[in-house]
Amino acid sequence: MAEMKKIGVLTSGGDAPGMNAAIRSVVRSCIYYGVQPVAIHEGYKGLIENNMEEVNARSVANIINQGGTFLKSARCAEFRTPEGRTKAFENAKAAGLDGLVVIGGDGSFTGAMLIEKEHGMPCIGVPGTIDNDIFGTDYTIGYDTALNTAVEAIDKIRDTATSHNRLFLIEVMGRDAGFIALNSGIAAGAEEILIPEEDHSVDKLMDSLQNSGRAGKTSSIVVVSEGEKIGGVVELGRAVEESFPEYEVKVTVLGHIQRGGKPTCVDRVLASRLGVAAVEKLREGISGVMVGVRDQKVVTTPLEEAISKHNAIDDDLLRVADIVTV
Amino acid sequence: MAEMKKIGVLTSGGDAPGMNAAIRSVVRSCIYYGVQPVAIHEGYKGLIENNMEEVNARSVANIINQGGTFLKSARCAEFRTPEGRTKAFENAKAAGLDGLVVIGGDGSFTGAMLIEKEHGMPCIGVPGTIDNDIFGTDYTIGYDTALNTAVEAIDKIRDTATSHNRLFLIEVMGRDAGFIALNSGIAAGAEEILIPEEDHSVDKLMDSLQNSGRAGKTSSIVVVSEGEKIGGVVELGRAVEESFPEYEVKVTVLGHIQRGGKPTCVDRVLASRLGVAAVEKLREGISGVMVGVRDQKVVTTPLEEAISKHNAIDDDLLRVADIVTV
Amino acid sequence: MAEMKKIGVLTSGGDAPGMNAAIRSVVRSCIYYGVQPVAIHEGYKGLIENNMEEVNARSVANIINQGGTFLKSARCAEFRTPEGRTKAFENAKAAGLDGLVVIGGDGSFTGAMLIEKEHGMPCIGVPGTIDNDIFGTDYTIGYDTALNTAVEAIDKIRDTATSHNRLFLIEVMGRDAGFIALNSGIAAGAEEILIPEEDHSVDKLMDSLQNSGRAGKTSSIVVVSEGEKIGGVVELGRAVEESFPEYEVKVTVLGHIQRGGKPTCVDRVLASRLGVAAVEKLREGISGVMVGVRDQKVVTTPLEEAISKHNAIDDDLLRVADIVTV
Amino acid sequence: MAEMKKIGVLTSGGDAPGMNAAIRSVVRSCIYYGVQPVAIHEGYKGLIENNMEEVNARSVANIINQGGTFLKSARCAEFRTPEGRTKAFENAKAAGLDGLVVIGGDGSFTGAMLIEKEHGMPCIGVPGTIDNDIFGTDYTIGYDTALNTAVEAIDKIRDTATSHNRLFLIEVMGRDAGFIALNSGIAAGAEEILIPEEDHSVDKLMDSLQNSGRAGKTSSIVVVSEGEKIGGVVELGRAVEESFPEYEVKVTVLGHIQRGGKPTCVDRVLASRLGVAAVEKLREGISGVMVGVRDQKVVTTPLEEAISKHNAIDDDLLRVADIVTV
Repeated sequence: MAEMKKIGVLTSGGDAPGMNAAIRSVVRSCIYYGVQPVAIHEGYKGLIENNMEEVNARSVANIINQGGTFLKSARCAEFRTPEGRTKAFENAKAAGLDGLVVIGGDGSFTGAMLIEKEHGMPCIGVPGTIDNDIFGTDYTIGYDTALNTAVEAIDKIRDTATSHNRLFLIEVMGRDAGFIALNSGIAAGAEEILIPEEDHSVDKLMDSLQNSGRAGKTSSIVVVSEGEKIGGVVELGRAVEESFPEYEVKVTVLGHIQRGGKPTCVDRVLASRLGVAAVEKLREGISGVMVGVRDQKVVTTPLEEAISKHNAIDDDLLRVADIVTV
Repeated sequence: MAEMKKIGVLTSGGDAPGMNAAIRSVVRSCIYYGVQPVAIHEGYKGLIENNMEEVNARSVANIINQGGTFLKSARCAEFRTPEGRTKAFENAKAAGLDGLVVIGGDGSFTGAMLIEKEHGMPCIGVPGTIDNDIFGTDYTIGYDTALNTAVEAIDKIRDTATSHNRLFLIEVMGRDAGFIALNSGIAAGAEEILIPEEDHSVDKLMDSLQNSGRAGKTSSIVVVSEGEKIGGVVELGRAVEESFPEYEVKVTVLGHIQRGGKPTCVDRVLASRLGVAAVEKLREGISGVMVGVRDQKVVTTPLEEAISKHNAIDDDLLRVADIVTV
Repeated sequence: MAEMKKIGVLTSGGDAPGMNAAIRSVVRSCIYYGVQPVAIHEGYKGLIENNMEEVNARSVANIINQGGTFLKSARCAEFRTPEGRTKAFENAKAAGLDGLVVIGGDGSFTGAMLIEKEHGMPCIGVPGTIDNDIFGTDYTIGYDTALNTAVEAIDKIRDTATSHNRLFLIEVMGRDAGFIALNSGIAAGAEEILIPEEDHSVDKLMDSLQNSGRAGKTSSIVVVSEGEKIGGVVELGRAVEESFPEYEVKVTVLGHIQRGGKPTCVDRVLASRLGVAAVEKLREGISGVMVGVRDQKVVTTPLEEAISKHNAIDDDLLRVADIVTV
Repeated sequence: MAEMKKIGVLTSGGDAPGMNAAIRSVVRSCIYYGVQPVAIHEGYKGLIENNMEEVNARSVANIINQGGTFLKSARCAEFRTPEGRTKAFENAKAAGLDGLVVIGGDGSFTGAMLIEKEHGMPCIGVPGTIDNDIFGTDYTIGYDTALNTAVEAIDKIRDTATSHNRLFLIEVMGRDAGFIALNSGIAAGAEEILIPEEDHSVDKLMDSLQNSGRAGKTSSIVVVSEGEKIGGVVELGRAVEESFPEYEVKVTVLGHIQRGGKPTCVDRVLASRLGVAAVEKLREGISGVMVGVRDQKVVTTPLEEAISKHNAIDDDLLRVADIVTV
C-alpha cells in the first residue's frame, strides 16, 4: 500500500461528457478512503500556474449529469517542455500531492507518463474522450454520449430527407477512428458509412448510389467519419453532385455538438467505476497505468501501451453494416 | 355553407415538424364533418401526376409525434406554369375534390392562390415552416420545434465552450428573418446575436469581443442567422481570427437538424387547431385565405397578404437580448 | 422614477423550470441599470433568517438551462404571520433592499402583497409555476416545459400501448386547472382527456370506451388531470376494469418529473422578458403588480387580481380536442 | 447448412425499445441471404390465428428509431397448451416457414423451446426485454434505453428535490433483478439504492437517513427496484414518514415510460447484430439457442439454459455505488 494523503485530479485535452462524473468519483473515492482530494483547474496549466484547491464531497454535488468539465481543460505548451513539467511537479509537491489522476486522451497520458518518469509522481490515466480510440479499454468516457448525440441528429435529418428525396452527407467526429461513424451509421440506418479504416473511395460510393438509384430508392443518408481519406465532406458532396446531377446533395457537419450534452447512463457509470479504480490503484501502489474496462471488468494498461496501440474496428460490425443496409 | 364532399390535403415546400400533426387534424376534421379526406403525395407534383388516395382516421394514426411529412414534399416547376396548374386542377376535379388544404410557406401559398384564381378551386393555406416568417399568424407550425432543437444544440456547444475558453460562431436557420437566431440566442444565453434585421457588422461584433476580452470573459457563443448580411459564418470566423489571434474560433452550422425531430407540444397543438380551422373555413365557404393564430385566437388572412407582408422582429425582445447579455 | 439601489430576488412555492432563467434575468437587468442585485435563499424563509447575499453577473452564469431554482424554494409558515413579515421586512431594510422580485405562484404573491401593504416594501410578482393557473399572463414560466415533459412521457407510453392493446390512464399535474391535461392530451393524441373544468364522469368515459371498443380500437390513452372530480386515477382505473374486464388497464402517475428538466426555449425567453420587466417596473415606481405576457406584450396586473381571478380553459381548444380524437 | 427458404419473425412478451430494430435486421438479413422473411403479428397468437405476411426491405424502412414493436406483442394462453402449439406449427408449416426468430424474454423462449422440441421447428431466441435478466448475454435489447429513460426522469426529479429539501423514493422497473435500479441509481447520483439482490430493509435505509440527516444533507433520492423485498414503494414511503416526520417524503413510480421511447444507439446496434446472427445461425443449421453478446462477441446459449439461469448483479458495481454516495 502506498501512503496517499492527497491526490490531485485534472481534466486535459478535448472535453468529453462524463468527465464531471469521473471527477466526482475520484473526489468521493478519496473521501471514502480518507484521502484529501485536490482539484486542479485547466489541466496541466493549473499545475504550472498553481491553480488548485482542496475540495470535498459537496464540491462535486449535482455535477454528475452535466456535460463538459467544471475543472476546465486547456492546452498547455509549457507542459510539453521538461522545464514546464519540473515547475508542475514542484507545485504538486509543494501542495502535498502524493498522486495524480489525469482524465483525458492520448496527449494527456503522454504528459502523465513523462511527469512520472522524470519526477516520480505517481499517475493514473482515466480514458475520457469521445473518439473511443484509446487502447486498453472497451469504451472511453464520453463515447456513448457522443454516439447518441450523433444518432439523434441523424434521426432528425432523416425526417427531412424522407420528406424530400435527397442525399445527405453527414460528417461525424473521429479523426483517426471510425467508431462513431460505424456505430451511429448502423443505428441511424444510414445507407452508406465511410470510415478511415476502410479503403472507400468516391468510386465505391458512386457505385452504391448508382445501384440505389436503379432500385428506386430516392433518399439516402451517408455517414462520413471526419478522418475519411477521400477528403472533406464538402468536397465529397461536390463530387457526388457532379456525377449525379439528379441528386440534391446536402452536407451537414455535426461538429462540436458531439462533445457536449448530458452524459448517458453508460458514460456516468463507466466514469464512476474508473474514478473509484484510479484512487484504489494509487493506494495500492500501482501507477503509470491507465484504468479501463475490458469485458465489464476493470483492468490496467501501462500508459505507454495505451498511447502507442489502438483498438481495431470490429470486423463483425462492418459485416453487420453491409447486411442491414441492403 | 359550401358543400364539401371531398377535401384534398398536401404539404409543399420545405418540411417542418408538426406537418404530420396538421395532416392528421385535417383528415380527422373531415371525418368528423362527414367529408371524405384525400391525401395528395409530394405536394403539387402529386396533383399533377394524380398521386392521391382517399384516407381514413387510421391512415393518420401514430403520426402526430413524427417529424417530417409522411405525404412528402417536392418542388414542382411544372405547377409554376399555367399549363401545370390546369392539369393539376383537372386531376383534382376528376378526383372530386371540392377544396384543397395546402400546408407550407410563401411559395406554396402562391400556388394555392393561383389555382384558386385561375380555376376557382377553393384553397386554404396552413402555415408550416420553421422560419416563422409568414404574415397573419403569431407562430408557424415547426417554428417552436426548430427553436428548441437549436437551443439544445447550442447548450451542448456551451458545455464544451465553457470547458475550453473558446469563441463559437453558430449559424442557425432563417434566411430572411432572425426569429430563430434572436429567440434561441436569448434562450441559450448567447453573448452576441447577429440577425438580418439589424445592421450588425464585423466591426460591431469586434467591438463587443474586445470589450468582453477586457472583462476577462474567456468563452463566448455568438448565434448568427444564416441571412446575416455580412456574409457566411465561415468568412466571419476567418475575420474574427485575423483580428483576435488570441481567440480559438470554432464555427458550427446547425443546418438541417433544425428541420427534423419530434414536434413540440406547442407545434402539435397549433397544427391540430389550424387543421380543424382549415376544414371548417372551407365548409363555411371561406377560401383564398390562410388560417393562423393571433393572440391565441384563430384568424384568417388573405393569401395575397400572407405572402406579401412579413412579421417584424419584436423590438422589445431585441432590447431584452441586449440587457440579459451584459 | 423610484430610486432603486438594491433589489432582492427570491423564488417561492413549488419550483418550476425557467425559474433560474428568471433569476438570471433579474440579476443581469439590475446590473444593466446600475442596481445591486441581492439573492435571497429559500424563499421568504431566507428573508426571515437573513440568508441573502449580493451577487453579480457571474453568479448566474450557466444556469439559464438548468431546471429547478438554485436559490431554492421553501415553505415558510412564519411568513404567513404578521410577526414573520415584520421580521422579514426589517431584515430587508437592514440589507438595504429598495424592492423585491418574487418568482412564484398564488401563495407567493399573497406574501408579496402583504409585505408591501403592511410595510411599504415595493414588490413585483413574476409568474413561475407549471400549472399555468395565474391570471394576468397568457403563460406562466415552467408551463411549456411541463407540457413537453408530459407529452414525451405519454409518447413513450403510447409506444408500449400500441404494442399491446391496452388502456392507459395517465395522470398529469394541474390540481385546479386542466391546462396541462388538455394540451398534452391533444398533443399526444390521447383518445380521452379528463379535466376538472368539465363535468366528466365515469359514465361518460365508459360510454366512450364502449364506442371505441365497438369501433375495433384496441389501445387507448386517457389523460387525466390530477384535479379531476371523479376521484384519483387509481380508483378510476379500478372502476374501468370492473366495467370492462376485457381491457387490461394500466395506471401511470407522471408526478414530479413534470416539475424538473431543462426549460424549453419558450420558458427561457419568457423568463428573460419578465425578469427584465420586473426590474424596469420597480425602477419606474410601479409595484404591487405581477408582470405577465398577454398577446406577446408585457403587461402588469395588480397582485390582488392575479391571485383572485383565474384563466379560463379555452373553449375552442376543447372543441378541437373532441374533433381530432374521432 | 440448413436450407432456409422462409424465416418467420415475431415479438412476444413485454415490448422493449429496439425490438423494431431487431425485426428490421432479421428481415434485411433474410433478404441479404436470399431468404423470404415472414412477419408474424401479435406474437404466438399470430401463428395460431394465421396472422402473418411476407415482407420486404421496404416494410421495415424508417422503423429502426421507433419504440415499441410494429408487429405488436400479445399474451397467448393458447400457445401454452400442446394443442395451441400444434395449431401454430401447422400454420407455420403451411406458410412454408423453415425457421422462426423469436424476439422476447424468458416466457417467449419457453414457447420457442417447446415448439422446436415437439414439432422440430428450428427456433432462435433474441433477447429483447428492458430488465436485462436473461442469461447468455451481457445486455438485452431495450435495457440501455430503459436505463437512460430512468436516469433522465430521476435527473428531472433531482432538480425539484434540490430546490426543496425533500426525500424522493423512486421506483424503477426490474421485478426480479436490480440492474436498472443499480445502474440508474449510480448514474443519477442517488443517495441510496434498494435492489432485490441485497437484504436491504427499512432499518438499513433508516440508519442511512439518520446519518445523512446528521450530516446536514437535506435532500435525498432513493432509487428502489420494484422487486425490492420490503414491499411496495408506497408502503416504504409511509414507513419513512412515520420514523422521520421532519422529512417531506414524495413517492414516484416511473412505470411504463421505461418501456417506450426511441432506442439508444447501443440498443439499435445490439439489435442489428443479433438480428443478423439469428438468421445466420438458422442458415448454419443451429437452433434451439438464444443469440447474445458476451465481451462484445456474438455467442449462443441453449434456450433451456437461457431460461433457467440468471445473470448475477456485479459485486464490484455494488461496491462502487457505496463509495460514490459518501
